[in-house]
Amino acid sequence: MKSRRQFLQHFSAALALPALAGWTNKPEASLQGPVLKVAIMGLGSYGTRVADALVGCKRAKLTGVISGTPSKIKTWQSKYGIAEKNCYTYDNSDQIKNNPDIDAVYIITPNALHHPYAIRVAQAGKHVICEKPMALNAMEALEMVNACKKANVKLLIGYRMHFEANTLEVVRMRKAGEFGKPLFFQGLSGFRIGDPGQWRLTKNLAGGGAMMDIGVYSVNGARYMLGEDPVWVTAQETKTDFQKFKEGVDETIQFQFGFASGAVASCLSTYSMNNLDKFFLNGEKGFAELQPATGYGPIQGRTHRGALALPHVTHQTTQMDEMAQIILDNKVPEIPVDGAEGLKDMKIIDAIYLAAKTGKRVDLKF
Amino acid sequence: MKSRRQFLQHFSAALALPALAGWTNKPEASLQGPVLKVAIMGLGSYGTRVADALVGCKRAKLTGVISGTPSKIKTWQSKYGIAEKNCYTYDNSDQIKNNPDIDAVYIITPNALHHPYAIRVAQAGKHVICEKPMALNAMEALEMVNACKKANVKLLIGYRMHFEANTLEVVRMRKAGEFGKPLFFQGLSGFRIGDPGQWRLTKNLAGGGAMMDIGVYSVNGARYMLGEDPVWVTAQETKTDFQKFKEGVDETIQFQFGFASGAVASCLSTYSMNNLDKFFLNGEKGFAELQPATGYGPIQGRTHRGALALPHVTHQTTQMDEMAQIILDNKVPEIPVDGAEGLKDMKIIDAIYLAAKTGKRVDLKF
Repeated sequence: MKSRRQFLQHFSAALALPALAGWTNKPEASLQGPVLKVAIMGLGSYGTRVADALVGCKRAKLTGVISGTPSKIKTWQSKYGIAEKNCYTYDNSDQIKNNPDIDAVYIITPNALHHPYAIRVAQAGKHVICEKPMALNAMEALEMVNACKKANVKLLIGYRMHFEANTLEVVRMRKAGEFGKPLFFQGLSGFRIGDPGQWRLTKNLAGGGAMMDIGVYSVNGARYMLGEDPVWVTAQETKTDFQKFKEGVDETIQFQFGFASGAVASCLSTYSMNNLDKFFLNGEKGFAELQPATGYGPIQGRTHRGALALPHVTHQTTQMDEMAQIILDNKVPEIPVDGAEGLKDMKIIDAIYLAAKTGKRVDLKF
Repeated sequence: MKSRRQFLQHFSAALALPALAGWTNKPEASLQGPVLKVAIMGLGSYGTRVADALVGCKRAKLTGVISGTPSKIKTWQSKYGIAEKNCYTYDNSDQIKNNPDIDAVYIITPNALHHPYAIRVAQAGKHVICEKPMALNAMEALEMVNACKKANVKLLIGYRMHFEANTLEVVRMRKAGEFGKPLFFQGLSGFRIGDPGQWRLTKNLAGGGAMMDIGVYSVNGARYMLGEDPVWVTAQETKTDFQKFKEGVDETIQFQFGFASGAVASCLSTYSMNNLDKFFLNGEKGFAELQPATGYGPIQGRTHRGALALPHVTHQTTQMDEMAQIILDNKVPEIPVDGAEGLKDMKIIDAIYLAAKTGKRVDLKF
């Protein structure tokens, strides 16, 4: 069985495109300007991926770390050249308040810690970047939004696909009417999860199972592919492995959305199937398919007009350069990545869990 | 807007493979033997397609017609060389009883006539081949099964995909365990229906809307792709055009199945989207995709092992040659096409309509 990382890297290795010489060496005007000084909280495998990606950024830079594991801090210090004074534990992390070397903290902890630490970071007066899912539920998400508003700091959610070129091209085509009226979205998001002891399979840390971790891609994808928020949700949960997937940890959920326009969506979230990462948008006049749609490697796909083949750039590098501009230049991204956007997804996920539990359609208002 | 026929021919024209010289000119041993003498009841566009396909059959032959339109009978007589004595109206069709030139009647009428005429044909002692959906509901289907049993004639449903080479290759692979345990099926079946006055959009004649006509492909496909019958059904109906899709005529239905094995299925049936004809089977060890999966032209697709590219033969020609062997030689087909098979699909469709109406999961037993 593959690990989560191996899964998400799968297409990267298999389908890597030849580098387009010089493509990343021509910074746009927007990539010139002040640099966002970022501390990473949570030094796990995804934190490392973001740290590596930050090395390639023009507008963002890794300057600090917050971790409960001293040995990890040492390793990161030597690997990324982080000053001793910018290293924090969870106990003293409130002291970032007085550190001019840290503008923002990227929270990459287990899901359950997003809410308390986002609020603490906000209260320390630093901008918050929070990995998805932004919280365990909509209530927590709303509290995070309010805390950041009150502290007058920005809250951004780690929606890296919102900055990916092929994804943005589909969104551009949809906005330009090239698909005609959007009618149907299908999202398949899943992988076969390995180690049963990991935090992602622990209800208290993950807040759920596949839906929180990978299903959220289809939840979010339905919205940016169709350009609309759902007005109703239905969902059906299936569990086959009660050892691995304990009470409150979902293995497989099918979920459906209806939209005010009449469009519908049909999605799958699973921890029991290999490499499911497909988006399909069908409109009155055309279609788009993305596969892989959300993996870390090159996003590939086609529309009724032909192949989508915009060059791959490490997603997290683009994300962090763009987030720096959102924070420092007040840039408005093509697809929102703010707390309100994350809150919508959490409301939908709450509704999916409720619909799966009750067997009833859940209506939504935003 | 395309007509139904144009839709189903779409891929035929666009993707026709070069003929493999000689491929259809080598009859297998099973294609040598007595010939099934077939009368067609209902001389519409699909009846014409079957008549044309019968010209290429080795084991089946068009010998008679039953129609309410004298001018159509004349046209067919001259086009297919049908003897005057083998031509019937609906009023005198019971007289086929005494006609040795007719072994079986292929009923290709509007759906509502399948039940009464299947019973009449059975009572006349002739084998019944009935186009899908076999009836308006499971009750009617059961009555047809019983009537044919009582009359000691065979009842076959027009499941042409059950004889299609690429489809059978996927089923063979699944039975051989090449996909591992089947986990997920997805079926998208739809097209944009044209003329609002046609019988397919008339509740009394069609018995429903897209589900009866095109959704049934995903219903049936879920079963032969996964090799299992569903134990529960959920469904969500969406209607945007209340003029075209009157009361009882479904425009779009999303439906989901659960299976005793833990596999799940997620399907779409629609009369409002262009050319949706995709099947996807995902197993523990591999996958199969068919697109188009059920159109009249070449079926195309791929598995984890590569492209599926078995040569295209006119589906209805293969179907009728195979059905002749089922009737005359008691051949057992790889995937059943008998009344019991059709009855299962009607039970499922009844459950889909009930689930869509009540918003509740419907459990199924076969």
